[in-house]
Amino acid sequence: MRGLMQDFPLLVHRVLDHAARWHGETQILSRSVEGPFHRTDYAGVSRRARALASAAGRRLGLRMGSVIATMAWNSWRHLEIWYGLMGLGAIVHTLNPRLFTEQLAYIVNHADDQWIFIDLSFVPLFEALQEKLPRVKGFVIMTDEAHMPASTSLRNPVCYESLIAEGDEGFTWPEFDENTACGLCYTSGTTGNPKGVLYSHRSNVLHGLMCALGDAMALSSRDVAMPVVPMFHANAWSIAFSAPLSGAALVMPGPKLDGKSLYEMLEVGRVSITAAVPTVWLMLLQYLEQNPALRLPHLERVVIGGSACPESIMRAFVENYESDVIHAWGMTEMSPIGSLGVQSGRAAQLPPEAWWRLKLKQGRPPFMVDMKITDDEGNTLPHDGKTFGRLKVKGPGVAKSYYKGEGLSAFDAEGWFDTGDVATIDEYGYMHITDRSKDVIKSGGEWISSIALENAALGCAGVAEAAAIGLPHPKWDERPLLVIVRKEGSAVTREEILTHLEGKVAKWWMPDDVAFVAEIPHTATGKISKMELRERFKDYRFS
Amino acid sequence: MRGLMQDFPLLVHRVLDHAARWHGETQILSRSVEGPFHRTDYAGVSRRARALASAAGRRLGLRMGSVIATMAWNSWRHLEIWYGLMGLGAIVHTLNPRLFTEQLAYIVNHADDQWIFIDLSFVPLFEALQEKLPRVKGFVIMTDEAHMPASTSLRNPVCYESLIAEGDEGFTWPEFDENTACGLCYTSGTTGNPKGVLYSHRSNVLHGLMCALGDAMALSSRDVAMPVVPMFHANAWSIAFSAPLSGAALVMPGPKLDGKSLYEMLEVGRVSITAAVPTVWLMLLQYLEQNPALRLPHLERVVIGGSACPESIMRAFVENYESDVIHAWGMTEMSPIGSLGVQSGRAAQLPPEAWWRLKLKQGRPPFMVDMKITDDEGNTLPHDGKTFGRLKVKGPGVAKSYYKGEGLSAFDAEGWFDTGDVATIDEYGYMHITDRSKDVIKSGGEWISSIALENAALGCAGVAEAAAIGLPHPKWDERPLLVIVRKEGSAVTREEILTHLEGKVAKWWMPDDVAFVAEIPHTATGKISKMELRERFKDYRFS
Repeated sequence: MRGLMQDFPLLVHRVLDHAARWHGETQILSRSVEGPFHRTDYAGVSRRARALASAAGRRLGLRMGSVIATMAWNSWRHLEIWYGLMGLGAIVHTLNPRLFTEQLAYIVNHADDQWIFIDLSFVPLFEALQEKLPRVKGFVIMTDEAHMPASTSLRNPVCYESLIAEGDEGFTWPEFDENTACGLCYTSGTTGNPKGVLYSHRSNVLHGLMCALGDAMALSSRDVAMPVVPMFHANAWSIAFSAPLSGAALVMPGPKLDGKSLYEMLEVGRVSITAAVPTVWLMLLQYLEQNPALRLPHLERVVIGGSACPESIMRAFVENYESDVIHAWGMTEMSPIGSLGVQSGRAAQLPPEAWWRLKLKQGRPPFMVDMKITDDEGNTLPHDGKTFGRLKVKGPGVAKSYYKGEGLSAFDAEGWFDTGDVATIDEYGYMHITDRSKDVIKSGGEWISSIALENAALGCAGVAEAAAIGLPHPKWDERPLLVIVRKEGSAVTREEILTHLEGKVAKWWMPDDVAFVAEIPHTATGKISKMELRERFKDYRFS
Repeated sequence: MRGLMQDFPLLVHRVLDHAARWHGETQILSRSVEGPFHRTDYAGVSRRARALASAAGRRLGLRMGSVIATMAWNSWRHLEIWYGLMGLGAIVHTLNPRLFTEQLAYIVNHADDQWIFIDLSFVPLFEALQEKLPRVKGFVIMTDEAHMPASTSLRNPVCYESLIAEGDEGFTWPEFDENTACGLCYTSGTTGNPKGVLYSHRSNVLHGLMCALGDAMALSSRDVAMPVVPMFHANAWSIAFSAPLSGAALVMPGPKLDGKSLYEMLEVGRVSITAAVPTVWLMLLQYLEQNPALRLPHLERVVIGGSACPESIMRAFVENYESDVIHAWGMTEMSPIGSLGVQSGRAAQLPPEAWWRLKLKQGRPPFMVDMKITDDEGNTLPHDGKTFGRLKVKGPGVAKSYYKGEGLSAFDAEGWFDTGDVATIDEYGYMHITDRSKDVIKSGGEWISSIALENAALGCAGVAEAAAIGLPHPKWDERPLLVIVRKEGSAVTREEILTHLEGKVAKWWMPDDVAFVAEIPHTATGKISKMELRERFKDYRFS
């Protein structure tokens, strides 16, 4: 028997409708690409999103299922495009300007993007790239007539503000199924071509609700939220949805992400919650250190994720600036939030330093993320904070496959998505990423964390950089090789390093050998390329 | 094009699964019907809910779509029944012990309840009533063998704890569509038979998420929530769902709802948030006044709804006990929450007394409640805090029809549910109930609030009770008649009352006449029966 409750599809534009009707005067402050601050509110964004939807239908030919791309900073205009075009039933494909141009060309063509909406910053990039994008009909330049480039070789350049001006602010959203696709973001894996994650209206709304909850970002209409994490990557950690559904004001930092500019946005906007990767916060903290009179009186919580956050950064916010820090973890495939290090009711009973040990981990899953760790055979492992296993997740915000059917092997028969991370979960439910599963070293049926070995080695005087990789071993399957770049002028030896490791890692984790190299290879995003290292050492044999 | 995100149906037992896995040791403290306090946790409730589901399938023959009833206080056992039987795909019909026995018999038969789960308190009631319930197979008595009645005439009496003991704690929930019905609650309207609202898994989960949000109850795992509002009426205002999905601890007050007993639960349980109707809080405050040494150190927020809360109660909590008060409004047809008087970011800018004027209203709708006021022709009316109109709502937690197709007239072609209330909405979005639409007095195309007239009249010395009703008028359609019960010994006159009203209500609202009566009729729930009054005065003619 079915319940007799209303059919109210979870469509993302209903989020904006709610914000416009009940938080209409709540401010959206942006730093524009053109330079000045720009102020609007949810009612204004709603009117212009509708105008855009109607004009995009008429002039650009967009309709249900059309795919368009954006390459844009966080701004009110990018919000309008998300809501306006998703509301039309189109799919917004966000492009990350940090991708290599080959990857950009690949994903634009793979996604069949019809139009690309770009900030002024990216006009030169696409002037150079458009030859490789033969099916793109044209480019909407996100500025007004006064700021349009005097001349551009871009195919069919359209001025965004002129497009909006043609539109109808009274446009009525179409109604459609909540499982309709609305967003597309490619992950740039270390192997093979980038793979697309196709978000639905339902997944974005449920994930937005989840992120607003009390053990996640605890958003309310008293908050001012600044997503520094870009809309062009990993969905701005839901904030473009979770803030308006909570009635929180928004501060959009635009293109300037240096410490001084972010400080200015935090203060002018009276930001209460913000979110970004550790390197962004490092720049902010350096700026603050250089200007010791500056404080952060409005900032209550800083969400940090994307990579493990150094303790020093977390301590600086908490101890020097009285802003709490929430360590978070996620993936593009998870919309992206998977866990947050908010203090649970149980953890609140711990003494401060014991709590800090949990706080440094990647946190707990909120309702609507199921999470488990398993061994290679899929057996669930205990939550003891020591045993580490493959981290697998489920939920309405988790992908079930990649766009156009690629990369299906990440999803098992029971629907668990294998994150590719290796993690522990402790008795308080805090998850800690210990390695990537392809980098973990499998020795005699047990796992050795390459990251733990590297961190221990980095503490040895004379070591500039360290990488641990597993290499084939006749008896133990794999054993660790530690690859070291010496600091300039250092002559640190194999024996000194191994002695340094003693007592810091389990005896059976001790590397079988140490190799010294002049340089360790890195990926485009700055991570150590273990794949390349393993290739380089493929003929190495432990003696 | 459909998104490629996981199919993760919103099933209520997933809420308990989450709580059991990630907040397993979080406490559920109950006052048992047998007397002593009882302590368990989410892991315990989850194990027993699964055991119950398996035993109920085997021994009671329950399966997908079976309808069972409960008449029970708020306790861990009632929680187990909700989750266990909803998780089985059955429908839990909650019975309100305050209903007349004729109404109870009607709804049990109308719903075709197969089994009834009852607390010990209600054994005598059903011993007397069971003859009128020929299709009920038997009764599960919610106690252990030691407390089972020595003898009972109840048909097929089953001991709840013995049933659980037969069950399998490893029972696996079936998977089914999220729109499957899971709960049934009848509203007792003032006219006609009670009508059933059939909740779905989806509606309960979405409504629970909504109630947990920052501008609603702002629940987190640091909270201890005590729903005094019963699970047998209006879904315990979502708390049986919103607390576990937030990881909040629960305190269940059982059968004792007097001031002293509630105070004891608040203190022993260290309750941070609680919810009930105004009369409950009046009893608590009276108890506290009698014991001036007592404080409420743990209590942070008190949700008050069900009927308009007097300012004195709200002020007492805020000013004497430093507990914030959230005025809320809802209906059985809304799962039940429709609005909450949480301070919005904009309202936080107001001076304290201006904010108090908003705080006394019934609040703002959270995301997933759409709300509007309209005139009789359906035209939307402005949010000016003055214009009042029919209050209509939409949302995934709002009914689209009643059980077995009854009472369809409340739902219009666009899916808006007419609440039967008349309200204003102010520029800050705060909704204020001014009347019931059947009681509002329609004079010359304008509406007069009967409640406003009554409240003004109650301020006149000598007036014990006042009721305003609209009676037919040849020129104005309707005009107000004020019906007054004098205080004992008072000889207050028509003229004195009308003089008192001058300046307190608009000139054209002034009652055309005042009638004095010995007694005003009331409904079963203590409200003035305007229907009966109108019937009594149906031959009255304004002179």
